Order: sequence, then structure tokens, then C-alpha cells
Amino acid sequence: MRASRFFISTLKEAPSDAEVVSHKLMMRAGMIKRIGSGIYTYMPMGLRIIRKVENIIREEMDKAGAIELLMPLVQPAELWQETGRWDKMGPELMRVKDRHGRDFAIQPTSEEVITDVVRTEIKSYRQLPVNFYHVQTKFRDERRPRFGLMRGREFTMKDAYSFDRDVEGLKKSYAIMFDAYTKIFNRFGLQFRAVAADNGAIGGSGSHEFHVIADTGEDALVYCPTSDYAANMEAAAALPPTTTRAAATQALTKTPTPGKQRCEDVAAFLNVPLTQNVKSIVLVTEAKEGEVATKQVWLLLLRGDHELNEVKASKVAGLAEFRFASESEIVEWFGSTPGYLGPIGTKKPVNIVADHTVAAMSDFICGANDVDFHYTGVNWGRDLPEATVADLRNVVEGDPSPDGKGTLAIQRGIEVGHVFQLGTRYSQDMKATFLDENGKPQPIQMGCYGIGVTRILGAAIEQNFDDKGIIWPTALAPFEVVICPMGYDRSEAVKAEVDRLYAELTAAGVDVILDDRGERPGAMFADWELIGVPHRIVIGDRGLKEGKLEYQGRRDTEATAVAPAEMVAFIQARLAA
Amino acid sequence: MRASRFFISTLKEAPSDAEVVSHKLMMRAGMIKRIGSGIYTYMPMGLRIIRKVENIIREEMDKAGAIELLMPLVQPAELWQETGRWDKMGPELMRVKDRHGRDFAIQPTSEEVITDVVRTEIKSYRQLPVNFYHVQTKFRDERRPRFGLMRGREFTMKDAYSFDRDVEGLKKSYAIMFDAYTKIFNRFGLQFRAVAADNGAIGGSGSHEFHVIADTGEDALVYCPTSDYAANMEAAAALPPTTTRAAATQALTKTPTPGKQRCEDVAAFLNVPLTQNVKSIVLVTEAKEGEVATKQVWLLLLRGDHELNEVKASKVAGLAEFRFASESEIVEWFGSTPGYLGPIGTKKPVNIVADHTVAAMSDFICGANDVDFHYTGVNWGRDLPEATVADLRNVVEGDPSPDGKGTLAIQRGIEVGHVFQLGTRYSQDMKATFLDENGKPQPIQMGCYGIGVTRILGAAIEQNFDDKGIIWPTALAPFEVVICPMGYDRSEAVKAEVDRLYAELTAAGVDVILDDRGERPGAMFADWELIGVPHRIVIGDRGLKEGKLEYQGRRDTEATAVAPAEMVAFIQARLAA
Repeated sequence: MRASRFFISTLKEAPSDAEVVSHKLMMRAGMIKRIGSGIYTYMPMGLRIIRKVENIIREEMDKAGAIELLMPLVQPAELWQETGRWDKMGPELMRVKDRHGRDFAIQPTSEEVITDVVRTEIKSYRQLPVNFYHVQTKFRDERRPRFGLMRGREFTMKDAYSFDRDVEGLKKSYAIMFDAYTKIFNRFGLQFRAVAADNGAIGGSGSHEFHVIADTGEDALVYCPTSDYAANMEAAAALPPTTTRAAATQALTKTPTPGKQRCEDVAAFLNVPLTQNVKSIVLVTEAKEGEVATKQVWLLLLRGDHELNEVKASKVAGLAEFRFASESEIVEWFGSTPGYLGPIGTKKPVNIVADHTVAAMSDFICGANDVDFHYTGVNWGRDLPEATVADLRNVVEGDPSPDGKGTLAIQRGIEVGHVFQLGTRYSQDMKATFLDENGKPQPIQMGCYGIGVTRILGAAIEQNFDDKGIIWPTALAPFEVVICPMGYDRSEAVKAEVDRLYAELTAAGVDVILDDRGERPGAMFADWELIGVPHRIVIGDRGLKEGKLEYQGRRDTEATAVAPAEMVAFIQARLAA
Repeated sequence: MRASRFFISTLKEAPSDAEVVSHKLMMRAGMIKRIGSGIYTYMPMGLRIIRKVENIIREEMDKAGAIELLMPLVQPAELWQETGRWDKMGPELMRVKDRHGRDFAIQPTSEEVITDVVRTEIKSYRQLPVNFYHVQTKFRDERRPRFGLMRGREFTMKDAYSFDRDVEGLKKSYAIMFDAYTKIFNRFGLQFRAVAADNGAIGGSGSHEFHVIADTGEDALVYCPTSDYAANMEAAAALPPTTTRAAATQALTKTPTPGKQRCEDVAAFLNVPLTQNVKSIVLVTEAKEGEVATKQVWLLLLRGDHELNEVKASKVAGLAEFRFASESEIVEWFGSTPGYLGPIGTKKPVNIVADHTVAAMSDFICGANDVDFHYTGVNWGRDLPEATVADLRNVVEGDPSPDGKGTLAIQRGIEVGHVFQLGTRYSQDMKATFLDENGKPQPIQMGCYGIGVTRILGAAIEQNFDDKGIIWPTALAPFEVVICPMGYDRSEAVKAEVDRLYAELTAAGVDVILDDRGERPGAMFADWELIGVPHRIVIGDRGLKEGKLEYQGRRDTEATAVAPAEMVAFIQARLAA
């Protein structure tokens, strides 16, 4: 490609609404253009990258035996009503009425449509397994779109759906997709991690997220450096302490802690370690039987330095649909305002659930349900009855790995892929069955597999940038190589060598752009460093006289001299590296 | 591709709602699946064809210097309000509100968004000309979606937009696109015709439609077999008769024509040629000045065998926004019900416009504005004043070509492409300007260029089918070649030869499918004839013993024996033909 036949538009400053580095750099590099909140035009430079992402995905999906089709964007509400998602999904599902007043959804995913396709197309076990995928525009009406392509409203997603006759088949299809995803992210040239995820409301029996590692990532990934264990924070189990509870040594004492509400403040005031304090969190559940709602109040106890894991809390029996208590509810049940709450002497009865760590503590400190007072020297069994015990907390660095093979580490990630064993969640609602060998209808076992195509761009940049701009891995770069001529229009020798090299690289299948715009060297280099092309060749009269071209990798601190006749082989070796 | 790893699903019968042959055959061949009215899932077999169409379009657009980007599907109403199309477009523009109640359009085309992109990106004449295109899902909420992909609601379109500094530049960009379209349709392997079109409400100075020729086409294409003249029916000019009007020979006579309302019936009843009769068509215009609406009634006169051309009528001064009169309006102005209307003795004054042909008639017959009566022997100047004369009719076969180089012929076509000189229609409303050499802002001259990607499939089939199914031109075929083994699982010799040929054809870059499904020969052949793969190779034990494979082109009436060693070269020669 010649730059004069392409569209390059860079900016010195990012617009003020760009909050994260990937958004800023994509705007500055002219890759995207905002049309509305969370809605972008992918400019030519950005679209090239999207196409490279899509092509890698397609190649690996095809190799894995998945078959591409294309489902519509505007989907009849009737299908979404069959699975109940029309009502269950909130305003993030964009709804639209046609000229006849009929309801449609603009697809955020396509479980309903693919299940509708399959229930008429798949009749027999002989047609299974099968896996369909498409790469299509999606829309989610996010409450607060932001971060450019990282949380847009309109985006491109690859979603695949597998169909199997039984759970064993589903697990096999799932493993094939897991493997394909690993190949895809490896080919992208990105550091990534697959982590076990909680299946959540969608149900089913297994799920993994694929995250691009980046310090700026929204998600915490838990892993064990000495084993295969990896899970997202929601799903990472904290093992119960292996040490037994120490015997009580202190007397229960109601101690004044004036104005000290946070565990950190209490610990500092009493001059004790934070780990001797217990944090109180109050939840409420409401069970409705006919007209009568029964409210229950729950007190969750965590060690002072630990954080509540809400997904784990929701798995405690009775807590599936909790909410946090209001201040007035807290006063009504505990007789105190927040900051001084504890399990001893509540005003009305509460259900107490202690995290494993808390259950193993002795001589601990907690609120006394009296403003400006805490209890010290609190001991289970003696000062209060033993409580229900559960895993309630987020793991922390250094916790033992649940597989017993080391200690946990944590890093930040950006979720870009998700694989899911759906089971019969959709096939049962939509009566998608096949006939088995005995001619008996059986529900089809489904899996679904998504990759956020446009989000990959943002994630790749969050992982690969410097103060000059983006540093694309070669597989995703809009161009693999840029040729920067010094005086293309002035020097015949430069022009001849540039044209020769451009033609040879193109013929060798290298994705090269020749910058024939006539920009000054400083502006030209700055543009390509911002855009992030990984390999740069500079050709000028001075070097040519010495029989040298100048090569510089985007991460290199200085240039390498390469003889003109060797440059194609040199570049090919670099691309293959 | 092995058929066992692909998804093939054929039907014996088309669903009852499929009205046209392309819709029936695409449904039967498992290429599309209906999800809602005018909304389809493109099944794997159909998607392969769509991709081939898209790839050819992309290659030729790129060669022509157009640059691909991708504009969003959901577009803010504000942009559509700037050009007035938000209000002007009817319910075919699908509108949707987001969670905050803001209005959006689901794009039917992208003039507004591209003009918004360009008005911020293009600052100087140095950046012009430029041409951007995208291949994207479109939505038009058709009142009556039908004919499968021919008039769907959700469809894929390639739309390109050129930007130039002046009209001369626009004409050049337009010529380049016209040329690219010609190359594209030639590469599709389809018979097509580019015809001049009326610019209509969109304005601008020039426009051509590209039609795929098919007897079942909705549009009539007018052309001159002995010259370059070609136009659609709307735009094809009917030249005034060159003969002068004959002198009157009959007296004006009010003649009973009981119950004879249509010209055909009157002509038969009076035993005269239909060409002696004049047809009356009543139109109404309403001019509003403040609160007062002034209604005018118009009588258009056409020869009995001619048809009104509404586009031409709307170009008569005063008729730009006409409607047809209601029966009560007709009675009020003419004193008669329809069927007996004419220009002589109307009840209230009407504006009379005669087609050129009618103006040259003498001794003609028209309604007498009295039920069951016509006038015969009517003559201009004697019985009624000379009227305004205009070209009001559709041309017919044999009319002289407007370029004076022969006579006109008519064929049917399906519109699949449209190129348009928009001029400053959008750039002025949206203030898209550039600075010229003198630093003075000038409005950008725009052109737009569309191809209905998914519609191409329907049109190609309407042009190429027989009673067995579809006959794809090789460039569009889902697979170029199918290998049908006789006993792939039973005969080692067959399996060896099939696998060898499959591997060699694949290595030679041929898009080949190996039917390893194990179907019986009859069913297998019927499937591929229905699907329309243009080249078939049959490999069986009997042939192998004789050193022969069997080749048959989809249009061939019998098979050709080809030696195994020669088959790859044979196929390559066929594909290159």
C-alpha cells in the first residue's frame, strides 16, 4: 500500500473524553472516530487491524471444525420471549419496533436465533456434533459507554455455538474451543491467561474467561505460578486456614473507640495488627410468600484486611438474592449506626456467617453494637456461639493455591473471550431436540464461545504501548513494515531503491506501506511510532552511498544497518521471529 | 472442504411463501433461513457466495483507489436531522431509542455519517479527491418484504462515497466508479446492463443503475441495440412524433358506448384501432399558502395503448407533487364517473396536458364526461383548444432511440447497483467544506455508489437456473468443483483417487468440495445440481478400471471422460474459460 492511496490522519492531542491509554492512542492514530456515545466509525487504519483479528479467528475456528454462517442483527422478540430473556434482560438489550408495531431486539448475542436454526435443521444424532459461528456487529446499550472500543455500545463479536448429543460430547466440543482460543490468542502475539469463571446466572457446568494481561485491566486474575491453577477473582476459592484456632487468652472487654469506625482506624487506635480485627457487613434478603414478605438480616464477618466476594456470598444457602442493608435497617436490627457493628448483642436476631479465616481467630476485635465502642478479646464458643462458616472473601496474594501446588499470585486482565458450557439452558426452553438411536427426542447440549473482536484492539494496546504510541504485535499491526524514504521526490537513487524494495517486499507477501506523502522525517517517524507499525525501514541518500539501509524495530532503541540486497531476507527473518 | 465438515441441508419442496424462483431455490438449497419477515440467517452455503461477491467488490474498489472503513449501524438521529432525512424518510427508516430516550436510525445508507467523518477529517484541497466505502449490514423496513434476498429488510450493501473539490473532479470520480462497477459485474460472470436513471428526489446531476438481466426482473430497461443508448423506463425519453398531424376528416360526434370504460373495450365496440383512442388520467395538486389550500385538477391525455410514466408527469411544471384524484373529486370536476372522461366540457376547469403522441392525433376518440358516452372524431383546434404538450408516456419497443441511432428495445432487469452524482446535496446541509488554494471554504462535491451484495445472489439465480436448480457462474459458486465419489467408504481405489485429486485440486488453489457424506449417487447429484456447483467430477471403480474420471459441467448435457492424470489441468482450463 502507498500512503498516498490510503487515509492517514493523526492528532497531536487526544480528545478530552478519552480516559484510558488505548482509547487515547486509537483516537490520536486515526483508527476510530466517535459518531455517538459508545459508537464509532472504524477508520481505514483501524479496520485493517480488525480484519487481521477476524482473519486469525476465522482460520482457527475453521481448523477447529466450526462452520461460519451469519445471523441477523435485528431479531424477532418472539424468540427472545421463548427463553425469557426478553423480560429478564434490562435496558442493555436494545429493543425496536417495526412499522407494524412488532418488537425486535438488536442482537447482543445470538443464542436464541442459532437455537431456532438448529431446532429445525438438526433432526438426528447423526448430524451432531456441530458448531456454528459468526462474526457480526453487536449492540449493547451500556449505561455508561467508555474506554473507546473497550466498553462501546456497538461492537464486533465472534460468537460460536456448539451442539452435542450429551454432556460428554459438550465437554469435548468445549475442549476443542478452549484449544482453538489458546491458538488464536497465541497467534495474536498477546500475553493472555485463561481463568476459570463463575457460571453465574446463565447456568451450566463450566466456563472460562480469556484475559489479555494488562496493568490497567478491570479484572483481577488469580493464578498459581507453580501450577496450572487460574481463576478470576469471583471464582478463586480461598482455602480454610490449616492452623487450628488458638485458645482464648484475653477477657471480653467493651473498649471505647471514639469515632473509630473503620477496622484500620480501630487497629491503629488500639495499637494492634489489622488482622486481629473483624469487619461486619450487613445483608438483607426478602422472601415473599403470597402477600407477606419476610425480611431476614444477615451479618457477614470478614477479617479486617479481607474483602467481601459477592459471588461467594450469594452461594451461601439463603443468600442467593441478597442486597446490602440500608442505614435505617442497620439501626433497627443492631441498635447502632454502621462502624460499630458486631455479632454480640444485636437488637433483633440476625443470621451470622463467618468467613473461614474469622472462624479460626481468637482474641479478636469487633464492634459492640454501641456507637464509639468495640469489643476486644472476643472468642468463639465463649463469648458468642459458633457461627455458620463459609468462603466469603476475595483471595489475596500469597494465599495457598486451591490445588495445593503453591501460593496464589494476582495480575490484572482485560476480558476478551469467554467459553461456556450452557447445557440445555436454551435447548429446553426452545424445544431444540434431536432423535437418538432409539428414535427418542433428547434435548441438545449447547456450548457458547465468544471473542470481543473490536475489544481486542483496545486490550492489545493497553498491553503494548510506550510514550511514543502503540506497539502492535506483528500479527495485528495495520501494516507489518513501513518504508520511510528520505527525499522520495528529490532523489532518484532513493526513489529507485524505495520502489525496488517496496515491490520486492510486496511480492514476498509482506504487508508493507510506503510513506510517499512527502512529510518531513520527524513528522513521518512520529506518525508511524504513534500508529505502532512494528518494523521500519529508512532509505536515504547518505545511507545508500554507504550501501546501507536503516532498519529499526518499534521496540529497538537504535537502528540496524542492513545492506539493500539483504533487506528482504532480514525482514522475513524478523517477521518469522 | 469436505462435505462432512460442512453443513449441507437441502429440501425437496420450497416453503409456500417463496414466490420467485431465486427465493425457492435458495431455500431449497439451504442457503438462507427465514428468521422473520424479510430477515434471514445466511447459512454456511449462502454465506460462501456472499463472501465471494464481497471479495470481488473489495478487490475492484481497492484497485479503483477507494479506501475501506466501517461505519456504524446505529446512527444518531441528530445527523439525519441535519440533512432533513429524519423527517423526510417514511417508516422504511427504522428508528430506535436508547435507554436515555435518545433517537437513532438503523442505517439504510450512510451519507450522513460519512459526511460527518469527512467534514472533520478533510480540511484542505490537498486531501481531495478521496473515496471511502464500506460493506455493512443495512436495514430498510419495507412495507412488504418479499422475494427472499431480493427485497429483504436486513441486507448487506457496499456503499461508497466520493469527495471532490469541483464538478469536474466529481465527474472523474463517477467515471472511475462506473468503470469499477463494470469490471465487478463482468467478474461476477453475469449479464448486466448499465442504464441512465432519473435522479429523482435525491437531486444531483447524473445517475446510472446497474441491472442484472432477467426475464423475471421488476424493472424495464430500455436500450438501443445499434447504439450505446440505455436508460431505465423512468428516464427513457419518448421522442415527439416526426409526422405532422393529419387534417380532420370526421365530425365531432357524441357516441353511445354503454358500459365501455377501458379504451380497449371502446375500440372493440366501435371497431376502430386502439391507437385511435385517448386515455384520460386525472391528477390533483394542492398548493398551500398559509392556511389556504388551493386544489388544482389536471387531465393527462395518453394514446389508448400507451402507459403513463409518473416520473415524467412529475416534471411537468406544476405537477412536481401530484396525486391521483379520488372518484368523488372526478365526479365533482368532470360530472361523470371514471371511464367516460375527456377534455371537452368538463364541469369545472381543469389543466389539460397531452402527451406528444396525442397532440399529433386527429379524428380521435375520448370520453364525453357523460356516463356511457364517448366523443368520436375529436380534433385539436376545432373541438378543443390546443393543450400543453409533454412527454408523459413510457416508451415502447420500436420507438426511435433518443440518440437517433436506431429503434428502442426493452428487456427486464433487476437493479443491483446504483451510482449517483450527489453534488453538494449533503455537504451543504452538513457544512462539509474544504479550503481551496486561496484559503476559501468551498462545499465538497459528493458522489455515492451502492451495490446490493445479498441481492446479487437472488439476481444471479433469476438469470441462471434450470429445472434441476441453480447454475452459478464460477466466480460466485459456493464451491467451484464438487468431487462425487462412488463408494468412498467401500472402494480403496476410489478413496485413493478421490483423496489424491482432492489434495491436488486444493493445492492448485481450486475451491473444491469433496462429498464424503456417503449419500447415494442420485441424491448426491440432485443436491449438487440444486446447489448449482458449476463443475462436477465423478469417480467410481468402473471408470478407474478404464482409466477414466467423469467430468460434467452444470450446463453440459452429458459427461466427458478425462484421464486421472489430466484432470487437474482439465479443470484449470475450464475454470479459466
